[in-house]
Amino acid sequence: MSTYMNNAATSWPKPDPVPKAVFDFMVGRGANLARGAAAGRDLETMDMVMECREKVAALFGGHKKGDPRYVSFSSNITESLNIVLKGFLKPGMTVVTSSMEHNAVIRPLRSLEKKGIKLEILPCDSCGKLDPHGFESLCGSKKVDMLVIAHGSNLCGVIQDVDSLSKICREKDIHFVLDTAQTAGVIPISASDLDLAALCFTGHKGLMGPQGVGGILWKPSFAEVCDPFVEGGTGSFSHEEYQPKSMPDKFESGTPNLPGIAGLLAAVRWIEEIGIETIHRREEELGSRLLEGLKAVPGVVFHGSSEMEGRLPVFALNIEGLDNGVIAGQLADIGIETRPGLHCAPLAHKTLGSFPQGALRLSVGFFSSEEDVDRTLDAIKALISQG
Amino acid sequence: MSTYMNNAATSWPKPDPVPKAVFDFMVGRGANLARGAAAGRDLETMDMVMECREKVAALFGGHKKGDPRYVSFSSNITESLNIVLKGFLKPGMTVVTSSMEHNAVIRPLRSLEKKGIKLEILPCDSCGKLDPHGFESLCGSKKVDMLVIAHGSNLCGVIQDVDSLSKICREKDIHFVLDTAQTAGVIPISASDLDLAALCFTGHKGLMGPQGVGGILWKPSFAEVCDPFVEGGTGSFSHEEYQPKSMPDKFESGTPNLPGIAGLLAAVRWIEEIGIETIHRREEELGSRLLEGLKAVPGVVFHGSSEMEGRLPVFALNIEGLDNGVIAGQLADIGIETRPGLHCAPLAHKTLGSFPQGALRLSVGFFSSEEDVDRTLDAIKALISQG
Repeated sequence: MSTYMNNAATSWPKPDPVPKAVFDFMVGRGANLARGAAAGRDLETMDMVMECREKVAALFGGHKKGDPRYVSFSSNITESLNIVLKGFLKPGMTVVTSSMEHNAVIRPLRSLEKKGIKLEILPCDSCGKLDPHGFESLCGSKKVDMLVIAHGSNLCGVIQDVDSLSKICREKDIHFVLDTAQTAGVIPISASDLDLAALCFTGHKGLMGPQGVGGILWKPSFAEVCDPFVEGGTGSFSHEEYQPKSMPDKFESGTPNLPGIAGLLAAVRWIEEIGIETIHRREEELGSRLLEGLKAVPGVVFHGSSEMEGRLPVFALNIEGLDNGVIAGQLADIGIETRPGLHCAPLAHKTLGSFPQGALRLSVGFFSSEEDVDRTLDAIKALISQG
Repeated sequence: MSTYMNNAATSWPKPDPVPKAVFDFMVGRGANLARGAAAGRDLETMDMVMECREKVAALFGGHKKGDPRYVSFSSNITESLNIVLKGFLKPGMTVVTSSMEHNAVIRPLRSLEKKGIKLEILPCDSCGKLDPHGFESLCGSKKVDMLVIAHGSNLCGVIQDVDSLSKICREKDIHFVLDTAQTAGVIPISASDLDLAALCFTGHKGLMGPQGVGGILWKPSFAEVCDPFVEGGTGSFSHEEYQPKSMPDKFESGTPNLPGIAGLLAAVRWIEEIGIETIHRREEELGSRLLEGLKAVPGVVFHGSSEMEGRLPVFALNIEGLDNGVIAGQLADIGIETRPGLHCAPLAHKTLGSFPQGALRLSVGFFSSEEDVDRTLDAIKALISQG
């Protein structure tokens, strides 16, 4: 029996139509994109990819009435963030981020910093929350070109106040880039309401699609000023020896992950059917049950908030006197899958006071059950009583 | 009834175990890579990815006894080439390529040229063949840092003399990068015998895997001097705010395309079972049948060689008095799938004299049949007789 408490790493299981769509595409269709002769199967691939762009644009409140050309696919959100950060930031520019970021943001920024980009890391409070006033006052003291932050923390689940941050970015003419790794498909987001320059997403977490596909929803004017990242054949403008400027080709080179896009399309259709509100409510319900249960266990120390409000059902904790890696191993031995350690987020752990020892992370998903939660709670209690 | 003559764009169908492996991974396993707690499913994912690296290293004659750490995965060969070219080339360096290259090589090089990298494009003959003497004499006149070429042309199927080119690169201490988009899985290649700095591959053509996965087999000393491309979480060295230098993590950030790797592993196992020699012989047999049939049709003009020796079963042709796009459309209407136009290779078309009109490309694969070939020949004859 397996109890999956690692949905923040990848959601599992996937809705039934997702693996089925991947399989059906590979077996029954399989044509490449824009690299054929408009035969029936070629058109099916084009339609499928365009429909996926449309649905993603609609899901994320795309700019310009959800123009699907402004959704480009990548292999994961890390690549999406690299495309955006390295495509826009030039020496002398200033980029602001927070102390709660994943290495998917921090590592490219540290690398850009070496090339002359100025990096400001705003401190968050002990629950991981970024104070918009801190950002506002920084913007008063210097010219800021870009803000990039995670919408929800992959460590302690805190959700940032993107409305206030967006307002400041609008006023100060700052490009706002949002990492939605933990929130896409789980919390409603409108890129146009937030005036996002780029909304970076991954397909395999809350969006319930396969691993290997992610993307970017672009503000058209921002896409225009970013340099391409991967350059090569696009199946378009084949006479040109330079990367085309038209969207989405500018940011998509080489054969795309078409089975992955087939799966993502099935996943987004499934989300539309269930409704993000329903998904969010269910995850909150399970999260509350886990949180309340954990709070009743003596010896459990939370990193980040110990309340359910303003957060995702992602919990970072330690147990007094026990090593989180050892606990995770013991839980794994009885089929409870979690993630210990630093979660690719050393700065976030420093912010929450759990560096360098790390934490045990428990993250429930839509397909988790009350039994999963209770089994996890019982197992943790048993481990503590055994010492 | 469908006759697939576009295997140079993507091979189709895939061997049965390939979509099955993708589906089984998504449904039955699905754990992320190195982002869990070493639970049973976590270990299965690690084993699967490591076995895939090992098999790819063995298939391509990897350096250092096929050390699997020197196989890194990407989303396609275009990304692989971008990783290598942009990771190594610095302003002032000289890179040499040929006039038969795909835009996957030409576009990143044109972009690098704007940043101060010197680009030399060696002309090929009217059959698309690169004369190693031309390369040798260029190397005598200036310092060359890298040679990057396609092993086999995606347009006319010509196979380059990589043995001679490799010898020159060794003598002159030049990094030799090979684009195996059309040859991997079809022609035996040994990266260590050729002393390749990097062998770039894609999974979805001759390797028979899914679209969305490719990679690089690295020479260890070359991997060391290349900068990382996509930076971010690697599930390793999580305390570090900079990209790790260890392999393969240096070149793999974010959640990999694990369903794709599952499919690629099944595909490489299938190739091992059938044997590359058997695959090559079968493709040559079908290619010869198609070639001889086409040569007997009055009005067919070949771009590139009209012999089977030293080539892949990929043919570029035009029919006197007819537009290749129109022919491809008419063939598609009766279920024969080809690719007209410029094939993301404008320089190659210029070399073969088929620019700007392009050509009709016919490419057979291992799963093509004699009936497919004959049906295509009959259809082309019928189109010509209708004018």
